[in-house]
Amino acid sequence: MKKHRPIDSRDVPRFAEIRTFMRLPHIKTTEDIDYAIIGIPFDTGTTFRPGARFAPAAIRDISSLLKPYNYPLQVDVAEVLSGVDYGDVPVINGYIEESYEIIETTLSPFVEANVVPLCLGGDHSVTLAELRALAKKHGPLALVQFDAHTDTGSSCFGKPYSHGTPFRRGVEEGLIDTAHSIQVGIRGSFYDANIVTESEALGFEVITGFEMQEIGAKALAERIIARVGHAKAFCTFDIDFVDPAYAPGTGAPVVGGFTSHETLQVIRALCDIPFVGYDITEVLPMADQADITSLLASNIAFEFISILAHQRKSANTAR
Amino acid sequence: MKKHRPIDSRDVPRFAEIRTFMRLPHIKTTEDIDYAIIGIPFDTGTTFRPGARFAPAAIRDISSLLKPYNYPLQVDVAEVLSGVDYGDVPVINGYIEESYEIIETTLSPFVEANVVPLCLGGDHSVTLAELRALAKKHGPLALVQFDAHTDTGSSCFGKPYSHGTPFRRGVEEGLIDTAHSIQVGIRGSFYDANIVTESEALGFEVITGFEMQEIGAKALAERIIARVGHAKAFCTFDIDFVDPAYAPGTGAPVVGGFTSHETLQVIRALCDIPFVGYDITEVLPMADQADITSLLASNIAFEFISILAHQRKSANTAR
Amino acid sequence: MKKHRPIDSRDVPRFAEIRTFMRLPHIKTTEDIDYAIIGIPFDTGTTFRPGARFAPAAIRDISSLLKPYNYPLQVDVAEVLSGVDYGDVPVINGYIEESYEIIETTLSPFVEANVVPLCLGGDHSVTLAELRALAKKHGPLALVQFDAHTDTGSSCFGKPYSHGTPFRRGVEEGLIDTAHSIQVGIRGSFYDANIVTESEALGFEVITGFEMQEIGAKALAERIIARVGHAKAFCTFDIDFVDPAYAPGTGAPVVGGFTSHETLQVIRALCDIPFVGYDITEVLPMADQADITSLLASNIAFEFISILAHQRKSANTAR
Amino acid sequence: MKKHRPIDSRDVPRFAEIRTFMRLPHIKTTEDIDYAIIGIPFDTGTTFRPGARFAPAAIRDISSLLKPYNYPLQVDVAEVLSGVDYGDVPVINGYIEESYEIIETTLSPFVEANVVPLCLGGDHSVTLAELRALAKKHGPLALVQFDAHTDTGSSCFGKPYSHGTPFRRGVEEGLIDTAHSIQVGIRGSFYDANIVTESEALGFEVITGFEMQEIGAKALAERIIARVGHAKAFCTFDIDFVDPAYAPGTGAPVVGGFTSHETLQVIRALCDIPFVGYDITEVLPMADQADITSLLASNIAFEFISILAHQRKSANTAR
Amino acid sequence: MKKHRPIDSRDVPRFAEIRTFMRLPHIKTTEDIDYAIIGIPFDTGTTFRPGARFAPAAIRDISSLLKPYNYPLQVDVAEVLSGVDYGDVPVINGYIEESYEIIETTLSPFVEANVVPLCLGGDHSVTLAELRALAKKHGPLALVQFDAHTDTGSSCFGKPYSHGTPFRRGVEEGLIDTAHSIQVGIRGSFYDANIVTESEALGFEVITGFEMQEIGAKALAERIIARVGHAKAFCTFDIDFVDPAYAPGTGAPVVGGFTSHETLQVIRALCDIPFVGYDITEVLPMADQADITSLLASNIAFEFISILAHQRKSANTAR
Amino acid sequence: MKKHRPIDSRDVPRFAEIRTFMRLPHIKTTEDIDYAIIGIPFDTGTTFRPGARFAPAAIRDISSLLKPYNYPLQVDVAEVLSGVDYGDVPVINGYIEESYEIIETTLSPFVEANVVPLCLGGDHSVTLAELRALAKKHGPLALVQFDAHTDTGSSCFGKPYSHGTPFRRGVEEGLIDTAHSIQVGIRGSFYDANIVTESEALGFEVITGFEMQEIGAKALAERIIARVGHAKAFCTFDIDFVDPAYAPGTGAPVVGGFTSHETLQVIRALCDIPFVGYDITEVLPMADQADITSLLASNIAFEFISILAHQRKSANTAR
Repeated sequence: MKKHRPIDSRDVPRFAEIRTFMRLPHIKTTEDIDYAIIGIPFDTGTTFRPGARFAPAAIRDISSLLKPYNYPLQVDVAEVLSGVDYGDVPVINGYIEESYEIIETTLSPFVEANVVPLCLGGDHSVTLAELRALAKKHGPLALVQFDAHTDTGSSCFGKPYSHGTPFRRGVEEGLIDTAHSIQVGIRGSFYDANIVTESEALGFEVITGFEMQEIGAKALAERIIARVGHAKAFCTFDIDFVDPAYAPGTGAPVVGGFTSHETLQVIRALCDIPFVGYDITEVLPMADQADITSLLASNIAFEFISILAHQRKSANTAR
Repeated sequence: MKKHRPIDSRDVPRFAEIRTFMRLPHIKTTEDIDYAIIGIPFDTGTTFRPGARFAPAAIRDISSLLKPYNYPLQVDVAEVLSGVDYGDVPVINGYIEESYEIIETTLSPFVEANVVPLCLGGDHSVTLAELRALAKKHGPLALVQFDAHTDTGSSCFGKPYSHGTPFRRGVEEGLIDTAHSIQVGIRGSFYDANIVTESEALGFEVITGFEMQEIGAKALAERIIARVGHAKAFCTFDIDFVDPAYAPGTGAPVVGGFTSHETLQVIRALCDIPFVGYDITEVLPMADQADITSLLASNIAFEFISILAHQRKSANTAR
Repeated sequence: MKKHRPIDSRDVPRFAEIRTFMRLPHIKTTEDIDYAIIGIPFDTGTTFRPGARFAPAAIRDISSLLKPYNYPLQVDVAEVLSGVDYGDVPVINGYIEESYEIIETTLSPFVEANVVPLCLGGDHSVTLAELRALAKKHGPLALVQFDAHTDTGSSCFGKPYSHGTPFRRGVEEGLIDTAHSIQVGIRGSFYDANIVTESEALGFEVITGFEMQEIGAKALAERIIARVGHAKAFCTFDIDFVDPAYAPGTGAPVVGGFTSHETLQVIRALCDIPFVGYDITEVLPMADQADITSLLASNIAFEFISILAHQRKSANTAR
Repeated sequence: MKKHRPIDSRDVPRFAEIRTFMRLPHIKTTEDIDYAIIGIPFDTGTTFRPGARFAPAAIRDISSLLKPYNYPLQVDVAEVLSGVDYGDVPVINGYIEESYEIIETTLSPFVEANVVPLCLGGDHSVTLAELRALAKKHGPLALVQFDAHTDTGSSCFGKPYSHGTPFRRGVEEGLIDTAHSIQVGIRGSFYDANIVTESEALGFEVITGFEMQEIGAKALAERIIARVGHAKAFCTFDIDFVDPAYAPGTGAPVVGGFTSHETLQVIRALCDIPFVGYDITEVLPMADQADITSLLASNIAFEFISILAHQRKSANTAR
Repeated sequence: MKKHRPIDSRDVPRFAEIRTFMRLPHIKTTEDIDYAIIGIPFDTGTTFRPGARFAPAAIRDISSLLKPYNYPLQVDVAEVLSGVDYGDVPVINGYIEESYEIIETTLSPFVEANVVPLCLGGDHSVTLAELRALAKKHGPLALVQFDAHTDTGSSCFGKPYSHGTPFRRGVEEGLIDTAHSIQVGIRGSFYDANIVTESEALGFEVITGFEMQEIGAKALAERIIARVGHAKAFCTFDIDFVDPAYAPGTGAPVVGGFTSHETLQVIRALCDIPFVGYDITEVLPMADQADITSLLASNIAFEFISILAHQRKSANTAR
Repeated sequence: MKKHRPIDSRDVPRFAEIRTFMRLPHIKTTEDIDYAIIGIPFDTGTTFRPGARFAPAAIRDISSLLKPYNYPLQVDVAEVLSGVDYGDVPVINGYIEESYEIIETTLSPFVEANVVPLCLGGDHSVTLAELRALAKKHGPLALVQFDAHTDTGSSCFGKPYSHGTPFRRGVEEGLIDTAHSIQVGIRGSFYDANIVTESEALGFEVITGFEMQEIGAKALAERIIARVGHAKAFCTFDIDFVDPAYAPGTGAPVVGGFTSHETLQVIRALCDIPFVGYDITEVLPMADQADITSLLASNIAFEFISILAHQRKSANTAR
């Protein structure tokens, strides 16, 4: 198998050359790769500040700061894995149902080829289409959702699709194995007393941001691990999980979130969960400062790739 | 008739109090008024940078700098006219056809009551709905379009509605009296050689930005006046008509536009055209610098109101 | 009693309509309300960066993200309370003594009517005038002051009034019950060794930011509660209490403050203190990033309202 | 006479060293100098956006880009003149009358010593104090005022002093020789029809911004020269004279102004007017973009110094 | 010959996909192409604000707004020409001489293959290396330099290479045919009276910015055309030629420049000059506002490509 | 001994006067002083975002907020110490070896005179030159390095000097007593598994950012103190040690750092280490937000000065 790996920033300076994620080659292939970065520049589902369509480009830009070795996980993603930056899904902003179809169609060949997709949204509405593509092959997935909002609204201004509803739709469509799914970080002011119980009624475990702050990063990770168990899982990361001080560039910021360190600490602890896909959503470059939000998003993506590398390396060693 | 007029900034400082356009009272009425400011916070039609949904708020914010007397036109809008800030149309971003209906439904009572609507977009897609509301009463209108783009595309990614297509749709729907309509400021690089001729084929006169720069503001105004004649007209102003130096806060900026002075000079010269409605679109506050784009937009709106005041004052005097 | 409540953002999108605090109705009334939001756009007392006059508008703008249910306190402020956004006090920037009179005159009817005022400054000098209005009815108040600075200077460049002196003036004027008052978060470099002891000499308990970081949010809240006891209290929140990472938009930022989570945690813990008024000061929108400071300020205001709702709900239940 | 001259940026890089205006030595002297740069960091007179107190620092910062030779005027200011950066007047923001006294007291020794003061405001209220210092020695001065606003209001919220009233106060105090004074660039929307005529009634010639745009830079200069004649003059430059595209960093921007080139062209043409002092006001660094407003202000100051050098050089040659 | 052409933004939205210049394919080839975009992310030669190393990326980002048809020149660059985005030269910032060699080595194969290079700097020091690569094949070239600075210093802090010296070095190295070369736009304050005459002594014609403003865009173009005659030429465009209002994002801005329209007007008028190469330098994205400087730079690049297309089309037609 | 002390901000407002560090007098002397602030505006060693050459000016600007009394250390630096702001070293950006010589030459007289230099970089490459100047007198120094990066690369693109290599060079040149040296905060993704071990192989103790977060600020300080022992030490602080939320203005930000409070807590705990010099590097003002990074840097510098004052005060008391 041919290995696709990043440009080495010791050879070509990191401010040079065409911007791809982590300086991976830009190839539209499903072959010879373990994972693919797939941008989904869609933000029609946004109910407050739009502009997440520019997130894939912004995350790619600053991701040139990433290097391949993950010290805490002791793994070199470029050694263990082969990956590419596919580029972007040609969504049609303004037309959400058509865009869902295009996203699903674009992702399906990767899913079929056992390539792990790491999608860069886009607002959180895009995750529904990703789940459709993945569940078609894998069946209902355990959802690990980092988010300040539950996104399980029944509708939004009378409409079924928006970034406030994807996970209710996902449950209704049978894409989510709610018994092993968990939403963490839910906080802020709520519309009413039922916001959390409605998610729970759908089957999700919910750890609010308030509780999360009480128990801390390690306990949070343990709760997630216990919930997911051995189920095939999908990790969806809404950047508003993090506090606005660490991630000002987002569409509907909510105060009281975790720090960047706490966030990465939780993710790394999930390194044995068998994730079949990932996404990072709701980065809003127009509201960012010195790219710190995009930088954090790129580091989260790096941890996701590292988890995959960690598992493949362990598997290789085990053989 | 009761007269609604702005708060006087000599009584209450201009940085104080709730933000309405030009400090007009915020009343949801069609009675006792000559004109109404109506925000349309919709940007689903945007094909590049979204965020014009925040334009009505931003224009209102900085419009507290406006005072009532127009020196070149020698008219005091607060003396001559009664006006209110209606607030915003409750559009559903992400759902353009439904939003069109809501816009039309909201505007119609004003049109019926002979109140001149001055709409603050929103991206340029909203103008189609405004024209529907106006043409229902007035018949096809002469369109005076200030814009860097023709917005007469036949479709956009296979879809009929976006900010690139409203005026083709408007012609198809019989809302525009193209024989008295004119598009001015069209410039930048084009998809192909036919961009201008396609608008001409629909019946519009087109003065490109290149030609406009050659002939200057006065000649441009004369060409517009000659084209419109005595037709009932609608003036739609896309802020990207102006050069990005003067209006950086817009979604698809195009270099080579007019200055703020040239722009206002042209508009003032149109003070005898019988406009039955106005809008200003494509202001993008997230890309603005020190509110200069919103400030210019608020001044353009002021000139529109001044034209109305000029005509009413002349009519009153004539009696 | 008529109930005034916010626009529901499930009916009208949160980026639409005229900006009031938490989408409350803008009515200049003291009747049928439990609390009133009152803007005080005054910044003449500022000794470093001015511009807090724009804070009320900025906080209102982003406060459209607030929803009515407080999950940790289990209370729906729109169900329990009736409130309005009064608008702004017509201060005269540049003339502090006259402005003090105008503030006091504006607030007094609310105080008389037993309406709890929640004031949005303005720089911290405005609190003196608020205390004058409140103490006239309630007598000297226990002051709970969140702040990086003591603001108990004896004078400022030889002048009695500025944002560095209000609480010494307040003590001198008999407005503050210092035996039950406390200043928390005081930190940074000081003019000399006596900064803390001077406040203590006035009767305040002082918990420095250094000590606060040692003891943590819960212990801080306990210390405040113990100090205030059952006294009628006023809570004044200078946004520079929070670390500049979480609140960059302020006039005289001081490093080493609490996070947004710690801050809200402390405030919520004060839910049994009988506050008769609140303010939030020193937000400087021109120095903010993506409105995160204004967003935090709006959340602090929401906690204040929630405390009132919590107490009224408990009282209602008790009946 | 000892000559004080700027650091040569060919010796010490322009981003290095302590920031003084044009890299002049910072000496608090009135001796051996032809001119002095004097900062007046006062903005209490501001009626909209405050923050001009930071203007002297910002103009100094970017003024390191200035070099000594004025090509159009063919004069090297470092060769012909000796100058220093005095530093700033220790004003008391919040207390305008006391600050006026401090400004006057600071400037008087320079005026007495025949040193030309070039003041960096501050808001436009500071000019009144400068005129007091100058008129004490020179008698009433011809005022050449570049401004979007007349600043001849009779009062502001019932108060005599603000940035909207200095020139009416100046006339009342006998500081201005209105028969040789002129206000140019007045524009925007006005409170009423009398704004211009009120200035004219005080004796000023007024050229509005509208007229100025019609006649152009050369004719404008001729009109100014004709008006001033041989009178001793003071030039006061409010940066809002320039269009916001060229000077976004100001407190009350007004669209429709001159470009940077037109502005400098007019100033250079005034090189034979016997100015005894200058100021530049209303630069607001917090609203600036990439320092372009401060850069323009520093270039305007350079033209002022060049005019002085031009006159001294001619005088020297004539001897 | 295979034709490489941009992605059509009617097929794939312009905010999607990996960023290359004008959405050209990213191929490291010298075959089957008429022109190549070559980024040179080098800024070690900068004497004031560094950061032009990020210019190639920023210009590529916003260049997705470019479409292929040039209306004034009546040519479709995608129809007439084949082009690629090569990517960037792997320069070593901090080491100017080595970087010069790398630039020359990278460009030479293009020059040999008769491919027209369009380089995106980088600071202006990079042009020397480009001239070395081109002159090796073509002999000394007529230089058409748009710039606020002559860049013909003899040294900079005792060193031969910086962005202030490339054209003196170029003359000394015999790379420039000064008899047909011209520098336009030189302005600002100068170190001394000889700045212009020194360039003239090297053989350049110099049109200062002051003179340029007097004669206007058309006359400026005529002067350039007359100077160059039929000589093979290189066009180097320093973005500080343009006024800071139109191009705030640059390292050493100079007030008093041309507008965007005037600039493009001049360039288009040069469409018959046989340019063998182009560059655009000194764009500083960190100082830009809403990408307007990068947008203008991308439009200038588009005009350069259009000139080539115009000439090839004419040649094809003539056959 | 004459004492040089800061301007008192109770006498002259802190936004007034020429900007020096902490309002110290700007005197180029080595006499009568305990410490000197020395700016090193050099950023040629930068491998990602340049611009640290503007850091000395930005830190000086905001340092006017500093006051002389350190509350936790109970020391008044203005009482105990005499200090000046020397100004800047006249480096030659673009020429690193020459600049190293100039830095060393500038610092040596201070070192000779037993004046403690507190240098404001510049990028981290400048520290090598500082160490050369100090080790010449003191011999190899214990290095206390706060940093996200080890900066012990063997070379950078084949070149020996950059901000990625100073401490390997320092070891090779015998400037560092590695047995008592420690690097803390190292984190992010690495090039390979050996990044930490390579520093350890050079003799450094390394505490990664991951470990640091586990053990906390107090334990970190203890580890540093234990490592240094009684050795003469140099403290070098790269601002990227701090999390980007607290220090967005830096050239190569790394997520997962300490907060401002934790950072200052560690530094204060080192108050008994006999430091002979300090620096703060990698502040990038162009990427800062509301000066919070420069503010933090100025506070770190204040802690450094306080440590010196603490030690001198103790010594004085002991006598």
